[in-house]
Formats: sequence, C-alpha cells, structure tokens
Amino acid sequence: MTVHHFQPTHYHTTIGSHEPMLRVQSGDTIVTTTVDARGQGSTGEQITPPGNPMTGPFYVEGAEPGDTLVVHLDKLTPNRPTGWTRKMVAPNVVDPEYVIQMPWPGKDESTLAIWQIDNAAGTATLIEPASTSLGNFALPLAPMVGCFGVAPARGEAISTATSAQHGGNMDYRGFVEGVTVYFPVLTAGALFHIGDGHALQGDGEIVGTGIEISFDVQVTLSVQKGKRINWPRGENADYIFTVGNARPLDQCVQHATTEMLRWLQSDYGLDPVGAHILMGQCVEYDLGNIFDPAFTMVCKVPKRVLR
Amino acid sequence: MTVHHFQPTHYHTTIGSHEPMLRVQSGDTIVTTTVDARGQGSTGEQITPPGNPMTGPFYVEGAEPGDTLVVHLDKLTPNRPTGWTRKMVAPNVVDPEYVIQMPWPGKDESTLAIWQIDNAAGTATLIEPASTSLGNFALPLAPMVGCFGVAPARGEAISTATSAQHGGNMDYRGFVEGVTVYFPVLTAGALFHIGDGHALQGDGEIVGTGIEISFDVQVTLSVQKGKRINWPRGENADYIFTVGNARPLDQCVQHATTEMLRWLQSDYGLDPVGAHILMGQCVEYDLGNIFDPAFTMVCKVPKRVLR
Amino acid sequence: MTVHHFQPTHYHTTIGSHEPMLRVQSGDTIVTTTVDARGQGSTGEQITPPGNPMTGPFYVEGAEPGDTLVVHLDKLTPNRPTGWTRKMVAPNVVDPEYVIQMPWPGKDESTLAIWQIDNAAGTATLIEPASTSLGNFALPLAPMVGCFGVAPARGEAISTATSAQHGGNMDYRGFVEGVTVYFPVLTAGALFHIGDGHALQGDGEIVGTGIEISFDVQVTLSVQKGKRINWPRGENADYIFTVGNARPLDQCVQHATTEMLRWLQSDYGLDPVGAHILMGQCVEYDLGNIFDPAFTMVCKVPKRVLR
Amino acid sequence: MTVHHFQPTHYHTTIGSHEPMLRVQSGDTIVTTTVDARGQGSTGEQITPPGNPMTGPFYVEGAEPGDTLVVHLDKLTPNRPTGWTRKMVAPNVVDPEYVIQMPWPGKDESTLAIWQIDNAAGTATLIEPASTSLGNFALPLAPMVGCFGVAPARGEAISTATSAQHGGNMDYRGFVEGVTVYFPVLTAGALFHIGDGHALQGDGEIVGTGIEISFDVQVTLSVQKGKRINWPRGENADYIFTVGNARPLDQCVQHATTEMLRWLQSDYGLDPVGAHILMGQCVEYDLGNIFDPAFTMVCKVPKRVLR
Repeated sequence: MTVHHFQPTHYHTTIGSHEPMLRVQSGDTIVTTTVDARGQGSTGEQITPPGNPMTGPFYVEGAEPGDTLVVHLDKLTPNRPTGWTRKMVAPNVVDPEYVIQMPWPGKDESTLAIWQIDNAAGTATLIEPASTSLGNFALPLAPMVGCFGVAPARGEAISTATSAQHGGNMDYRGFVEGVTVYFPVLTAGALFHIGDGHALQGDGEIVGTGIEISFDVQVTLSVQKGKRINWPRGENADYIFTVGNARPLDQCVQHATTEMLRWLQSDYGLDPVGAHILMGQCVEYDLGNIFDPAFTMVCKVPKRVLR
Repeated sequence: MTVHHFQPTHYHTTIGSHEPMLRVQSGDTIVTTTVDARGQGSTGEQITPPGNPMTGPFYVEGAEPGDTLVVHLDKLTPNRPTGWTRKMVAPNVVDPEYVIQMPWPGKDESTLAIWQIDNAAGTATLIEPASTSLGNFALPLAPMVGCFGVAPARGEAISTATSAQHGGNMDYRGFVEGVTVYFPVLTAGALFHIGDGHALQGDGEIVGTGIEISFDVQVTLSVQKGKRINWPRGENADYIFTVGNARPLDQCVQHATTEMLRWLQSDYGLDPVGAHILMGQCVEYDLGNIFDPAFTMVCKVPKRVLR
Repeated sequence: MTVHHFQPTHYHTTIGSHEPMLRVQSGDTIVTTTVDARGQGSTGEQITPPGNPMTGPFYVEGAEPGDTLVVHLDKLTPNRPTGWTRKMVAPNVVDPEYVIQMPWPGKDESTLAIWQIDNAAGTATLIEPASTSLGNFALPLAPMVGCFGVAPARGEAISTATSAQHGGNMDYRGFVEGVTVYFPVLTAGALFHIGDGHALQGDGEIVGTGIEISFDVQVTLSVQKGKRINWPRGENADYIFTVGNARPLDQCVQHATTEMLRWLQSDYGLDPVGAHILMGQCVEYDLGNIFDPAFTMVCKVPKRVLR
Repeated sequence: MTVHHFQPTHYHTTIGSHEPMLRVQSGDTIVTTTVDARGQGSTGEQITPPGNPMTGPFYVEGAEPGDTLVVHLDKLTPNRPTGWTRKMVAPNVVDPEYVIQMPWPGKDESTLAIWQIDNAAGTATLIEPASTSLGNFALPLAPMVGCFGVAPARGEAISTATSAQHGGNMDYRGFVEGVTVYFPVLTAGALFHIGDGHALQGDGEIVGTGIEISFDVQVTLSVQKGKRINWPRGENADYIFTVGNARPLDQCVQHATTEMLRWLQSDYGLDPVGAHILMGQCVEYDLGNIFDPAFTMVCKVPKRVLR
C-alpha cells in the first residue's frame, strides 16, 4: 500500500479515456488537491478554465471492465479561506410561473455570495452580500465531493457538468469523508477523476452550487475483481446506498431502486420476495441534485435492518 | 375548547364537499377512529368498501376560503393486532426492463404480507409469509397518516387514491403524532377528512402500501383567519416543511420549493435574496410517495437556521 | 332515433355525477349549445362563471360501467362573431431560464387577443392587438371540442381544467366534426358533458387557449354494451387513435400506446407479436395539450395498414 | 463546389473531436456510405462493431464555434436487399404494469424481424417472422437518417446512442431526402458525422429501431458564418422546424419551442407578442423518439403562415 503525493499540472472538464496522470496499484492511497468549479486553486488564482475541472485520471493497475472500483474518501479538506455560492434558486426548481417573481437579475459574477471558511471552528460564514436579512449567517462545514467517477465505456468523454452510470457531477451531499464509494469499471485502469469540492451543500444543489472551494484530498483506491455493478454505490457507518443519475427524478429513483434490489439479493442473502418486502418498509431516499443536466437520487437501506 | 368523541357511521372515498359529519369550533379536539385502506376496522371486519375510506368530513365553524386550517396530530395509535403490506415494489419504481425480473405474480390478496403490531413493545413483526429470508423481521412502529386534507374548491371531489393542493393521499411518513399540518381552506368549513393509517412506512411507499391498519385518532383543528397558503405545510420540533403533490417528482419539488420561498419571506423575515441563499445551502427534501397517481415531495428547512 | 333540442340553463365546472339535464336513448342525437371557456355565450354575455363550463350531463339509458359510450361529433359550429386567445406561450412550455425573456406582463384581460370568426369564409382573423407584426393575420377555421367526457367512477367530480381516463379537458385539435369518440362508461347513464369549443388551436394549446368561442353543437350518443375500454379512443376517416392523459408527456404516451396495443389485438385480429411489429413502424403521435394539469398525447394507427 | 467520393475505412460510436476523415470546403458535396446500426454494410458483412457507427467526421474549412453548419440531405438510399427491426415495443413506452403482458422473451437476435427492401417498387415487406397475423406486410419506403450531427464542445465525445444540442441519435423520421438541417458549430471544422439509416420508421422509434439498413448517402455541407443557433433546426418544403433532445418529453418540447421563438423573432420579422400569438395557434409537434437515453420532440411552423 503506497501513498502517492500527486500535484496536478493540468485538468479535464470531461471524464473520459484521457492519458493517465498517475498509475497506482489496487490499495494505494493518493494525496492530492482539487481546484474549485471555476478552476481556482488554494490561493484563489485561476489555474485552469472553469467547468468542474478534474484532477486525474488515475489508472489503477489490474482494473478491467466488469470489475468494481472502490474509492474510500479518506480526507476532504477545504484549503483556502473563502468559498462561493450562487444566490438564486435555479428556474427549473420553482413553479414556471414563479420564475418572474424571483430576485433577478442574477447571473453575472457580482451575484455570487462569498463565505468565509474556518476549518478550525468548523464553520462557513456568509460575508457577501452583507445587505441581506441573513446578516453574518454561519453554517457547520460538511465537506463533500461534487464530481467524481471513472471513464465511461467505448471512448465516451462526458462533460463534468453532468452524471451517468460512471458517476460524474452527482452533487450529492452524502459523499463526505469516511464514505466508501463503488463505481463500475468501464475501461482498463478505471481512470478515476475527482474534483468540484463543496464546503457544504443543501439537498438538490438548488442554487446550482454548494459552497464551491478548492480541496486537499486523500483517497484510497482498490479493485474488486469480477464484481459487476450497474450504478455507483456507497456505504457509510449507517447505510448502504445506490445512486441513480438521469432525468426526471422519477428515472433516478428507478435506477437507484433497481440497483438496490440487485445488491440486496446478491450480497445480503435476501430472496426476491424478502428483498421487496424489506425495501417497501425500510427504504429511504435522498435528493442529490435537481440542477445538473442529469439529476441524482440516492436509495438507502439502513445497515441495522441487514444482517 | 371542546373534545368531541366521534364514532363514524359511513365513509367517503373522495375528499369533497360532502355533508359534514360533525361541526366543531376552531380549537376543538376530535377523538375518533379510522378504518384501514381496505375499509377494515379495529376488529378486522369489513366496515365500508375499500379505497382509503375517510372519516369525516368535519366542518370547522368560521373557516372560509383564504384561511388556513391548522391540524395538530395529537394521537395516532394502531388499534388492532395486525396490519398488512403489499409484497412487491411497484413496476413504476424500477427500471422498465427490470419489471419482468420481479417476483411475479403478485397482485391478488394471497400476496399480502401480514405484520403483528405490538403497541407496548413498539414493534411491527412480519408473520406472513413465513418463508422469506427475512424470517420474523421486526421494525419499530412509527404511526403516520397516509391520507388527509380538506375539500377542494368549486365542488371538486377528488379520489382518495391521489393528492393535490388540498392534501389527500400524500403517503408521507413525516405525518406522525405531534406534527402540525396546515391546509389551505378551499371551501366553507374547510371540511376536514382523515384516514389511511400506517403503522410505519418506508420513503416513497414503493410497494404501494405502508403497514396498513385501523387507527385511534385524536386531532385538534383550528383556523387561521386571513392566512392564505397554496400547498400543505407542516412543522415538527426540528423543521418547517412544505408539501408538493404532482407528477413527475420534479414538479413536486417545484411546488414545494416555491411554497417554501413564499413562507420564508412572509413569516420568517427574510428578504428575497436572503431566502434564496439560505434555501440553497440549508434545504432538505423528503420523498413522500412515488406510487400514487400524484407523487409527493417535501421541502424542509431546519428551525435552527431560522430566527 | 330521436333528435333532442336542448337549451342548457345551468353549467358545471366539474365532470361528475351531477343531476342529469336530459335522458336520452342509445342512438339519440342532441342539438345544443356550449358557452366559451369563460362562460360567455353566443351574444357575448356572461352566462355562467368561467372555467370551462360544461353543457350536460346527459344520461344515456342503459349505459353501465363496463360499457363504452360512442360519441359522434355531428356538428361543431362557432356561433358568435369573435373568439379570443391568450397571447403568450405558457411558462412551462419554454426553457425555465427563458421565462424572464418573454413579453411580460401578460395575465390580465387586456392581454387577450381577439379574433374575428367568419363561418362563411372559414377564417379566423386577428383583430386585436392591431400593433403586432402579424397585422390582420388570418387562419382557416378548424372547430374542435376542448373538453368533453363522462362522469368518473365512485363519485369523483373532476375539474374541467384537467383530464383523465374519463376524458375531460384534453384540448386535442383532432376532436373535430365527423370524428367518433369512445369513452369508458364509469357510472350508470355515462353522464356525458361537453363544452370549451375552439374555433381552431395549435398543437399543445401552448398559450393555454385555442380561439375560445361558444358553439352550436350536435352529437349522437350510443352505447356499446359490454365493451370495456381503459382510455378515450377515437376514429376519423384515416386513423384509429387512443388518448393518454397524464403528466409528464412520457406517461401520456405510455397510456395511449398500451391502449392501442390492446385495441389492435382485441378488434383488429392481430396477434401480440404482429401488433408490436406493426406499431413499431406505423404508429404516429399527436400532442394534444402540454398546458393543462394533465397533458394529452394521442397514439394513431392509419386505417390503411389495418385490414 | 467539389463532389467528394468518400469510402469510409473506420467508424466511430461516439460523436466527438476525432481525427477528420476528409476536409471539405463550404458548399462541397460528399458521396459516401453508411453501415447499419449493428455495423453491417451493403453486402451484409460485419464491417465494424455495433452501436450506430458513424461515417466521418468531415472537417468543413472555415467553420468555427458560433457558426451554423448547413447540411442538405441530397440522397438517402438503402443499398442492400434487407433491413431489420426489433419486434417488441420498448418497456418504457407502455404502462409499467403492462410490461409483463408483452410477448416476452424478446431480446436476442432471433427476435429480429427481417424486411425485404425494394427500391424500385418503393416498398419494405416483412419476410420474417412469417408466422404473425401480419403475413407479408408491406409499407412504403421513407428513408431517413437516425443519427447525425457535429462534434460537441470542449472535447466531449457523446455516444451515438443518445442526442443533445449537437444532434446525434435523434431518430426523427422527418430527416428525409431533400431536407435541410442546421447544426450549431461547436468546434473548429464542425466535424460532421452521419450514420444509422432507416428504410422507414414510425413516430417515436418505439420498438427501438426503424428498419435498420446500410445507405448510399449524398450530403452537401456549407457554413453560415456568424449565425449562432442553440439546437438543431431544419426545413422542408412546407415547414421550418426545431429539434429538442432531452428527457422527459416535456423538456424536449421546452427546448424546441424556445428555439422556435428565437428563430421567428431573429429571421422572420416577428415581434415578441406576434411570435407568441402565431405559435399558439399554428405550431405543430412531432415525436422523434421516445426510446433513446435522450428523447426527441420537433417543433414545426408551417411556411404558409410566415412571410
């Protein structure tokens, strides 16, 4: 188990079969950094063009289509003193006839809100605009990864604006430190990409951003040979979960629920009828995002109801 | 404040401008019972035809369109020893091509699962079918109301299979004892209906049922004069929330989010930009149901971030 | 076969089990009138409150649940010199971020466009506003029924703003003179309602109206005993068609396509595989409306490919 | 104006910034061939792996982002004696609970239907399976392109299974010989790709295929400098039209309608209110496909109502 300290020199705004930046063995750990959604790094300077630039890809030796890539999110730490959010709920998230009642205009840079990040205190504090009724509103930090995943099959290179079976821009606030995430390996080496850190985020990413910020990141990558999955999966201390990325939300639910039904039967010793009965009364769903081209819903089953 | 003990003698499977069963004053409490979704009561006998039969309607003196009906769920107690669920995830909740892989057949009565309800122990235990890998699977009780609301406007009588702005069959597991729910009054007297108790339910009601059972119910009804709302709202110890009922889930989110934006600005002293910034980073969503003709999503804001 | 001349005296804005206005035998013809969507009649006076007021219901002797009501649209004639439309595409029909670029404001009465109707010439000519680049824009008349259907089951009374399996506000421009429409009988007597005439309409009713106008109407009603259908069906000289009413459009397509698969197999001598192959290469779809609470899509099969 | 005779030697199953196969001048004509969706050519041999392999890309000199690529479909001719279709309506196109009533099983090759193509007679005749009630069912040929478009921006390489603003697998049966199609140029040289010919197709491509076949193709490509569009557009003798690719169908309608509103105002001399009024009463919509990952709806305005 090697620890690689990797300093990215360029970035991608698609997740695809790009030239690997680093080759690692299954079980290795990578310590690296990510820029924010606009391509700005730890000193606030513009490092690369905007649009969720990815650190990576990382080639994991031995990973082949039909395997699963296991990603343990060891550490996710905002590495600069301020982050930013948009200030208005996205038009697609409100009733169509309400759109004209929103506080327009709102698209240029001057409309960004700025938040001060204090890792020691564990808080994000709104500092601009100073004029709202919120005043110096503070929220607890809950750092999470917005966009990560593996190269899709057959040479596709998918924009980091969106998500699919390979992962991508899922913007789910459950992807925090300590979580283990599983991706289907779709191409040799898996080609893992990561970026788009958020100091915290509400459900749905309904203003189109979390608190966007650059990160210090540590991840451990390993390969489960011959383990075939269809959609990203994950687990934390309390839950196993599956991730569906699509539009509309109904289809996200379909993907995630189907994947969970498969998982319960393949790995948790449940017969079909047992899996369905259990799901019916124990399932929980989280809304990842309802902003990106593909939305995200997460299907969760508590570990306490599984043996 | 009077306490009315009301024994229903007949039931409705629409929510509409039916003849009131009882007239109460604002602030009065009603102690009554509800039958289960199939019309079976506390002794298991068939009392009325199936289809979410409603107890009520209750006419609240002084309630007029443009007011809000406040419903406090004082007590919700399963009142018989067994409840039932369906055994298979509904076809619309899984990937369309997965439907044929499900454990069909599954629609006739013999396919119902039976759960033993123990109010003292606070558990529901699966007793039939005995043959699944779940064995005698036990879950903690969390009694909730599946279907309740007020008569819609203009003489509509809406099936208790579905939901809309008047409430109805929302099947949201957050409607538990202790919660306060707000409905827009749409006709004189509000005409409150209630039924379809669940001993517990997973998110989404994805098998088409919670654990269906008859209830002893106590509710307190009051009127907020001149308070106009658009969609059901609620609050518990930790959250205020709004409820959107529609299809697809995206539209539920639009209704609930718009209603929350209105609420934050009208009642919580937030300016438009402040309301949007706060929502962006603090909002949470629950999936009520993704089974009924209209689905339900709930938009929540934690009270700790409100003054 | 009797011809009934019926002069309506009051109207309903729900389709439901209202007191019949007239009882007719299967095969009888009804000659009557309808007011426009705002409740204005042939002289332009306000006859009844707005909201797609219905003429009827008409009770057809012998019709029982499980039968089909056959409605032949004998004559549909605008009966006054002007009709009106809204002037702006509905916010839900454009990209959410485009809504603020539309020519607001637009909701008050002054924003209605007025069209002169000339039955002899067969034209509708825009006369107000006179200031647009369209000038005195003329279109050929194509009179159609926006809202009609039968009482839903179990005492439901459904707003004439929306549609479902009983028909209702489908706003499909294919419902013109000469067309035969089939509705599932859901309650004794079928209880046929009709109203909301349009002098013409684009696909989708995307401004929320056709050219709204009062009509002289002649329909012939008959009952097919023991013929059970699930959704409205129809036929004209060239096509048989089925109608799906729901949200989103995807679900309309599902309802209409499923109903057509059933129809081809029950009435047109096609085996399952044959029906599927034929549908795959011969089906056509029309967009009824994408404005009402429930949208409408129509699934058509050309008669020339059926024996 | 040069005519290039181009014989493809390899193919792509993504549309992206691949190495150009040929460089042409604006106004040049290309005569070439396409393989069918499974990668089989004019003799039926397997030429390249399946999945809508594309001929191209073709680099058009002078085309830059912000321009429009004009594609005239000069000739589209099936070039072999048989084509194939799938035999079952896709599960997502019928009611979820109807899926188990369909004529399963149906996914393996043996389930393909085979059609004999007679260009001289202009017919496609079903020859396998011979056992259905359709017998030797014949339909008129209507050759169309299923998948074509330009490379997306920023290095994306999008699977030819789906579609977006760059075009792609739209499977719209209106893309026939004689039609002019406009694509937004998103990368230098436009990088035009074409493939996936259908001898004919129903609306919606509801069995997942048209009659799939290899083609002789002739197209003429030219560049409109400085003409910026957002979505594919087209025109034939009778209509101008815009194409929206997304999910659900509602969003396709939003994209296509918005694009048409822009077009009417920029090129057809309509003021905003005039454009909205005209659209309301004159628009027509076609369903491209409801099968691919992204669906397609087409918004049409008749040329007769435009000056």
